[in-house]
Amino acid sequence: MRVAVLGCGVVGTEVVRLLTTQASDLAARVGASLELVGIAVRDTSIERDPVVDRALLTEDAEGLVERADVVVEVMGGIEPARTLLLRAIEHGAAVVTANKALLAQDGPTLYAAADAAGVDLYFEAAVAGAIPIVRPVRESLVGDRVQRVLGIVNGTTNYVLDKMSTEGLDLDAAVKEAQALGYAEADPTADVEGYDAAAKAAILASLAFHTRVSIDDVDREGISGITADDVVWAERTGYAIKLLAIAERSDQGVQVRVHPALVPLTHPLAGVRGAYNAVFVEAEAAGELMFYGRGAGGAPTASAVLGDVVSVARHRVLGGKGPVESSYAALPVLPASAARTRYQVRIDVDDRPGVLATVAAVFATHGVSIEAMRQAPAPLGPDGVGFARLILTTHQASEEALSATVAAVADLDAVRRVISVLRVEGA
Amino acid sequence: MRVAVLGCGVVGTEVVRLLTTQASDLAARVGASLELVGIAVRDTSIERDPVVDRALLTEDAEGLVERADVVVEVMGGIEPARTLLLRAIEHGAAVVTANKALLAQDGPTLYAAADAAGVDLYFEAAVAGAIPIVRPVRESLVGDRVQRVLGIVNGTTNYVLDKMSTEGLDLDAAVKEAQALGYAEADPTADVEGYDAAAKAAILASLAFHTRVSIDDVDREGISGITADDVVWAERTGYAIKLLAIAERSDQGVQVRVHPALVPLTHPLAGVRGAYNAVFVEAEAAGELMFYGRGAGGAPTASAVLGDVVSVARHRVLGGKGPVESSYAALPVLPASAARTRYQVRIDVDDRPGVLATVAAVFATHGVSIEAMRQAPAPLGPDGVGFARLILTTHQASEEALSATVAAVADLDAVRRVISVLRVEGA
Ligand SMILES: NC(=O)c1ccc[n+]([C@@H]2O[C@H](COP(=O)([O-])OP(=O)(O)OC[C@H]3O[C@@H](n4cnc5c(N)ncnc54)[C@H](OP(=O)(O)O)[C@@H]3O)[C@@H](O)[C@H]2O)c1
Ligand SMILES: NC(=O)c1ccc[n+]([C@@H]2O[C@H](COP(=O)([O-])OP(=O)(O)OC[C@H]3O[C@@H](n4cnc5c(N)ncnc54)[C@H](OP(=O)(O)O)[C@@H]3O)[C@@H](O)[C@H]2O)c1
Repeated sequence: MRVAVLGCGVVGTEVVRLLTTQASDLAARVGASLELVGIAVRDTSIERDPVVDRALLTEDAEGLVERADVVVEVMGGIEPARTLLLRAIEHGAAVVTANKALLAQDGPTLYAAADAAGVDLYFEAAVAGAIPIVRPVRESLVGDRVQRVLGIVNGTTNYVLDKMSTEGLDLDAAVKEAQALGYAEADPTADVEGYDAAAKAAILASLAFHTRVSIDDVDREGISGITADDVVWAERTGYAIKLLAIAERSDQGVQVRVHPALVPLTHPLAGVRGAYNAVFVEAEAAGELMFYGRGAGGAPTASAVLGDVVSVARHRVLGGKGPVESSYAALPVLPASAARTRYQVRIDVDDRPGVLATVAAVFATHGVSIEAMRQAPAPLGPDGVGFARLILTTHQASEEALSATVAAVADLDAVRRVISVLRVEGA
Repeated sequence: MRVAVLGCGVVGTEVVRLLTTQASDLAARVGASLELVGIAVRDTSIERDPVVDRALLTEDAEGLVERADVVVEVMGGIEPARTLLLRAIEHGAAVVTANKALLAQDGPTLYAAADAAGVDLYFEAAVAGAIPIVRPVRESLVGDRVQRVLGIVNGTTNYVLDKMSTEGLDLDAAVKEAQALGYAEADPTADVEGYDAAAKAAILASLAFHTRVSIDDVDREGISGITADDVVWAERTGYAIKLLAIAERSDQGVQVRVHPALVPLTHPLAGVRGAYNAVFVEAEAAGELMFYGRGAGGAPTASAVLGDVVSVARHRVLGGKGPVESSYAALPVLPASAARTRYQVRIDVDDRPGVLATVAAVFATHGVSIEAMRQAPAPLGPDGVGFARLILTTHQASEEALSATVAAVADLDAVRRVISVLRVEGA
């Protein structure tokens, strides 16, 4: 079985290491030995990990994919990855990819090509790294009906939020620490602004709901607006702030979004610390499930890639084929305005009688029902006049109704400032 | 595709419900419709859930298995389940079973028969109910090397221990509460004494280490020795008590055991509450993974069964076959005496100078290294003389060395009583 690896960076190096050091175990599991026939890189002259046999390096990726039975794509980016994968498929190779960006943008093109050619296309590593989530959703839960997926699928932002919580850092300081430890890239935008999570949300939603969802369908908000103060207040009121990828089904269709949210401290997702990832799934019959582990890193991601390589290689040996794209449900994909969530709103108001009632009345007028309201002691305002901090938690409301409510509340004379508006999930 | 269901109890009824209510979704996912051709029971005359079409009930299970392409066994017990499954396999049917007792006792007979007949044998529901754990270990982690599996795989005992912790109940009271809620059977022995967990431990170990492990290889100790006092002291010292199924690999082989253990409160398994299950896996490349969800109950278990039904039915439609038994590694299965764990020992001693040193010396003589020692205030003894409670935590030690140490400590004049000896895991 000839295996080609495209890319020899963080993940590719570890894929090569596992293929090399575990060769005999892999052969036993596959029923045939896996021969690494080449590793495509941009530049063959640069220094590599000693596990990489330099004789296998090539800058001719196009030529390499034509010489393999299994092509592993761990180079990233849209092009030339897409063209190379399509070429591999055309040549009848099974393909394994960790490329979430490509799948979230143009998955259906690849799925269709693989389906037409009758070859396997596997991508466990593209969502939540080492955590087996693609296979459980595609295969284990296929006899059930998934209702909702809530995922912490970006380790960088989870690390940052965790540091803000445990060490009281502000966002910038926490990001710098993540960069120093190699958890965040020099340009952290893709992580901090939720683009990476949005790609994974699209892939998860497609699988869970048998419906095509692309990254463009995902409503996205990152964590750049989260302050140290938000984190402190979240904990005081019984929540952790997490960047969540959310995909949910309603009678109207499917809604997919990424945003920071308050998660009750008693929810299993609240305990996911550091750079770990976790995906929480609610299914009709199975109930609540959670999958937890390392969402990134060379070795963990390579583990997921190798699981896929063994699966597709086994199919070559034993016959058969893995699941194909399942988009039969073709549910409507709804805009963010269709989502109904609970909210927590923090407001500073004048500390005088009647203010609470006035604020509550505005919520009522807009049809937003208040679940809980508490008043926290606050220091004197800059003008020396006492003020009070209100923390309101609503029942489920639409974004539209909530925005209108908040705008109207902000206009009240007695309201000094709307400090923050955060969604509450998992409660 | 003709489907036969053997058994129509807690799980069988929910399997029938999903097959009936999700028929069109299942057909889309399989690529062919699933026709329920019969449901075998002991007694067709008793009242059943209205979802069960009485015309499909039969007391002739043997005849039924010959009329099906897929046989779902959810009747439980060793016989006639084994004979029926073997007959189904002989007739070329794919089989799906939730029967952990049978697999843990005689799995290899079934695996060999399925392999010889070239049919699928799936059993996701046999371990940890709804939680996808069999498929991830058999397929996702197949390119990696599992080092250790720690599982909370029995919901009844987890519920009981949780109640002891949160409500201060003693074991009997907590078991009664579990019985009242239907979490524990009238005779709770299989759960409380760890037999159910041992069956699952054997299955998990076989999968994780590619080695045959039967329930007879599993060293088993239940929770009947755990007192309310143990639970209180565990928490005071930073631990939760959990009944764990443990399978670990060393240079010498594989060791599999079930026993109550102290798990650090910061470990993800410590937060698994109520009747939930979770399996924590440590793999060389993937690192730490955890799978969490409902380990029992009709609907959750049926979800796992249906996932398997769809997989094996798809293979019939598209060709191919799932993984077969993988026992190529054939590692030696080691006795309990080979396990090395950390221990926490609680001892009441006379409150006078030199006792601590004397006790420590006994540990040292037996080669058991002490990691931490603390002294807790204790009330006066019955004789009016002051005593002190020592809590010692050891580094890893063999059971043999630890037992000898404890026996020698108990013989010391200054020692009043060895209160408890508990293993520490996951630290
Ligand atoms: N890193 C993670 O933790 C992680 C986790 C999950 C998924 N992924 C995904 O895995 C993929 C790889 O990530 P990575 O972190 O390993 O990336 P990386 O460290 O940047 O490595 C990329 C590799 O691809 C090669 N490459 C890039 N463009 C090429 C081209 N046009 N032709 C030939 N070779 C090319 C590079 O060659 P040179 O070495 O010559 O520059 C390099 O070896 C991405 O899709 C990523 O999203 C990564
Ligand atoms: N319950 C759970 O939460 C759970 C979770 C995971 C796995 N499992 C496994 O699933 C299996 C079924 O469990 P369950 O709780 O559903 O059991 P159950 O409620 O006791 O149901 C057993 C069913 O099998 C039928 N049956 C028993 N012996 C039979 C025989 N000799 N011939 C024909 N039919 C027979 C019974 O028929 P009658 O109705 O006529 O008595 C009954 O319908 C067991 O292997 C169990 O370990 C259960």
